[in-house]
Amino acid sequence: MEHTPSRRNPLSLDGARLLAQIRALGEIGADPEGGGRTRIALTDAEKAGRDQVVQWMRELDLEVRIDRIGNVFGILRSAADDGSQAPLMTGSHIDTVTNAGALDGCYGVLAGLAVARAFRQAGVTPNRSIMIGAFTNEEGIRYQPDMMGSLVYAGGLPVQRALDTVGTDGTRLGDELARIGYAGDMEPGAVVPHEYIELHIEQGPVLEAEGTQIGVVENLQGISWQQVTVQGNANHAGTTPTRLRHDAGWVAAAVVAFLRELANASDGTTLATVGCLRVEPGVINVIPRKAVFTVDLRDPDEIRLKRAEARLAEFLAQVAEAEGVTIRTEPLARFEPVSFDAGIIAAIEASAARFGYTHRRMTSGAGHDAQMIARIAPAAMIFVPSRGGISHNPREHTDDDQLVMGAQVLLDVILARLGHTSE
Amino acid sequence: MEHTPSRRNPLSLDGARLLAQIRALGEIGADPEGGGRTRIALTDAEKAGRDQVVQWMRELDLEVRIDRIGNVFGILRSAADDGSQAPLMTGSHIDTVTNAGALDGCYGVLAGLAVARAFRQAGVTPNRSIMIGAFTNEEGIRYQPDMMGSLVYAGGLPVQRALDTVGTDGTRLGDELARIGYAGDMEPGAVVPHEYIELHIEQGPVLEAEGTQIGVVENLQGISWQQVTVQGNANHAGTTPTRLRHDAGWVAAAVVAFLRELANASDGTTLATVGCLRVEPGVINVIPRKAVFTVDLRDPDEIRLKRAEARLAEFLAQVAEAEGVTIRTEPLARFEPVSFDAGIIAAIEASAARFGYTHRRMTSGAGHDAQMIARIAPAAMIFVPSRGGISHNPREHTDDDQLVMGAQVLLDVILARLGHTSE
Repeated sequence: MEHTPSRRNPLSLDGARLLAQIRALGEIGADPEGGGRTRIALTDAEKAGRDQVVQWMRELDLEVRIDRIGNVFGILRSAADDGSQAPLMTGSHIDTVTNAGALDGCYGVLAGLAVARAFRQAGVTPNRSIMIGAFTNEEGIRYQPDMMGSLVYAGGLPVQRALDTVGTDGTRLGDELARIGYAGDMEPGAVVPHEYIELHIEQGPVLEAEGTQIGVVENLQGISWQQVTVQGNANHAGTTPTRLRHDAGWVAAAVVAFLRELANASDGTTLATVGCLRVEPGVINVIPRKAVFTVDLRDPDEIRLKRAEARLAEFLAQVAEAEGVTIRTEPLARFEPVSFDAGIIAAIEASAARFGYTHRRMTSGAGHDAQMIARIAPAAMIFVPSRGGISHNPREHTDDDQLVMGAQVLLDVILARLGHTSE
Repeated sequence: MEHTPSRRNPLSLDGARLLAQIRALGEIGADPEGGGRTRIALTDAEKAGRDQVVQWMRELDLEVRIDRIGNVFGILRSAADDGSQAPLMTGSHIDTVTNAGALDGCYGVLAGLAVARAFRQAGVTPNRSIMIGAFTNEEGIRYQPDMMGSLVYAGGLPVQRALDTVGTDGTRLGDELARIGYAGDMEPGAVVPHEYIELHIEQGPVLEAEGTQIGVVENLQGISWQQVTVQGNANHAGTTPTRLRHDAGWVAAAVVAFLRELANASDGTTLATVGCLRVEPGVINVIPRKAVFTVDLRDPDEIRLKRAEARLAEFLAQVAEAEGVTIRTEPLARFEPVSFDAGIIAAIEASAARFGYTHRRMTSGAGHDAQMIARIAPAAMIFVPSRGGISHNPREHTDDDQLVMGAQVLLDVILARLGHTSE
C-alpha cells in the first residue's frame, strides 16, 4: 500500500512497511485460544516484543537508550545535537492487556519508527532530534498504577517506588525488569522533550460513527473512580412489604439510573459508568442486604467533574436517608483533566486539512502516556477511528488505509514542527 | 409459663412443655460456629430430629405412620374412627435451611403435639381424628422442589419422581430416605384430610410492625420467578458517548427501578424483588456487556400477577428496543395464588377474638405446606409475629408468650371445628 506524499512534504511515509511491522509485532505473544495477543508488561512475551522493537530501532540506526523503569527510546539525532538538545518526542507503549488487539500502543511506537524511516530513506537529518519512546507498563494489568513508565518519566512517581511495586502475581517489578534485561541506567526524565506528539487509535466509536478520518485530541478527560457500598437489610422477598424494605440492590439501581440522568443532562461532557456491581446474598427470594459497585465519572473540565462528584454524593445521602440504608464510598483513583498544547493541536489540524482528511477536535476518554508527558512538555495526540469503538479485545480494528493516513499526519506534523515544511 | 384457658374451652394448653420441646428440637443439629441449627432434609441431623419427634408422638400414644416420601404423621384417633374417617390435619415440617432459627416449621409440628397433649391430659377423645404431620423437605435446600413432601402428598408430584430426585450433593433422595430409616410404606395421600390448619411464624415484619398478635392467613401469594439476561456491548467507559452505549448494567438497573414502581403502584398487593444480579465483564472502566438477574414477582391475585408479568414483558421489549440490547427471559418457577377456606378463616378470627388477641387477615408471602394440602382439602393458616421479619437465620425470633398465644388459638380453632366448644 503506497501513499503519495503531500507535494509539500520532502519525505515519504512507507505505509506498507508500517503495516507489516504492526502485523509482525502483533504475532508476538499471540494467543490462539483466547484470541489476539497477550504481552503483559515485563513478561517473557513482552520481552520478545521489546527485543523486536529494539532490533527495528537498530536497523534504522537509531541510538537506543533504556531508562531505569525500562522505558525504551530510539533517538534520531539532529546534526546540531550534542546530546543537550531537547528532542521532539513521539511514541506510546507496546505492553498489552490480556487477549488484546494489535494496535493499542504499538501503532504509535511503530508510526514513530516509520517517521524515522522516512528521514533515513530520504537521507534527511532532522532539524531537531526525534526521540521515539515505548513506555513501560501503560496498561497496568500486572502492576498498578497504569501509565507507569510515562508517569515515572514525568516525575509523578519515584522510580524506586515503581521498582518496588508488587504485582498481582506477587512478583516485584524491579526484579522482573532485571530478569528480562530491560533495567536500563538512564535516569527517567533525564531528557526533557521539547514537545510530545502521540498517535493512537481512538478506542472509542466517535470518529467511525461520524465518518471522520482524523481526531485532533485537544484534551483528556479527568477521571474519578470510587467504590460505593450500600448496606441494607436482607429480608424475605415474599413477606416484606415494599414500604418496609431496605433493599441495597434497589438503591444501587437507583444510583445507576441517577448517573445516567446526570450524564444525559451534561450535554455529553460528563460520562458515568457502573462497570462492577454485585449484590449479597444473591438469592432469588432474598432482598439484597448489600450492594457493592464502582462509579467511573469523567469530564474534560475539572469544575464540571467536581460538580458531578458533588451531585452524586448529594444523591447518595438522599437515597440513604429515604431508604434507611447506609452508604459508604471509597475513592479509588482521581486524575484531573489534561489540556493539550494549542500550538500542536493547530498543527495537527492544519496537517489533516493539507491532506484533505476530514477531522475534528475531540476529547480523549481513555488515559494515555501523553497525559503524563504533558506534565513536563507541550503535548497533543492524533486519533484514527476504531471500528465499533472496540479496544482491549481481539476484535480491535482500524482499516489499513486509516492507519497509514494517521501515520502520514504524524510525519507531516513533525516535519512542520521541525521546520522542514513551510506552513 | 401457664396460660389460663378460655373459660369455654374444656382443654388446657401446656405452653411450658411446648416451649421446652421447641428448645429441645432446636438443639438437634446445632451449629456452634455458624449459629442456629442445620437440619437439612434427610441428613443425619434431620434423622435425629425425626427420631425425637416420633418419640414425642409415641409418648402421647399417637399412632405413628410414615409414607413413602417420608412424611411422618402422628394420629390421635376419635372414638368413631375405624380408619376410614377423614381426620383434621395440622402440622408443618422439621427440616431446616443452613443456620436456621428454631421456629420455622418446628413450631407448627410441636404445636400440633401440644394440641394432642391437651386432649390426652384432659382425658378427652376428639370428635374427629387429629393427624399431626411433619412433611419431608419443605425447605428444598438439598433436593428440589421445596415443599416436596406435601406436594407429593397432595398428588402434585409422583412419588417415584420425588424419590429419584438427585440432590445438590449428588445423592438420590430415595436412597437417603431409606438410609435414615424413614422410607415408609403408607401411600402419600392415602388419608385425605377433612381439613388442614397450619400454625407458623410470619417470617415477615407486618404483624410486629403493627403490634398485631395473630395473623389470620386468608391466602397465599402466587409466585412468578424468572431469570433475565441482557446482552449489550462492552465498550470503554471513557471513550463511548452515552448516546452510543448499549449498557446491559444500566438496562438491568432500569428494570429494577421499573419493578419498584410497579410494586408501588399496586397498593401493596404486588411484590417485586431482584435478589440476584451480576454484570460482565465486571471491570471498573468497561461498560457491562451482559447483565443477568432474577425477578421474583408475587401477588395473591392471579389476574394481577399475570398483569404484572405482562407489564414487565412490555417494559423489557421497550427498553431493549430503546437501548439496542437483546433481552432473554427464562421462567424458573410459577405458582398460582392459593385462597384458603372461608370457614376456617372465620373460625381462626373468631378464636382470636374470643381470647381478646389483636388480629388481622393477611396474605402469606412465603410458601408453606398448607398451599399444597389446600389442593386436596379446605385449609388455612395462623401466623404469629416474627421479630424484624427475620427468618432462615439464627436471629429468627418470636417471643415465648406469642408462641403460646398462637398454639392456644390453634387448639381453640380445632376444638371449635370438631364441635367441642359451642360458638
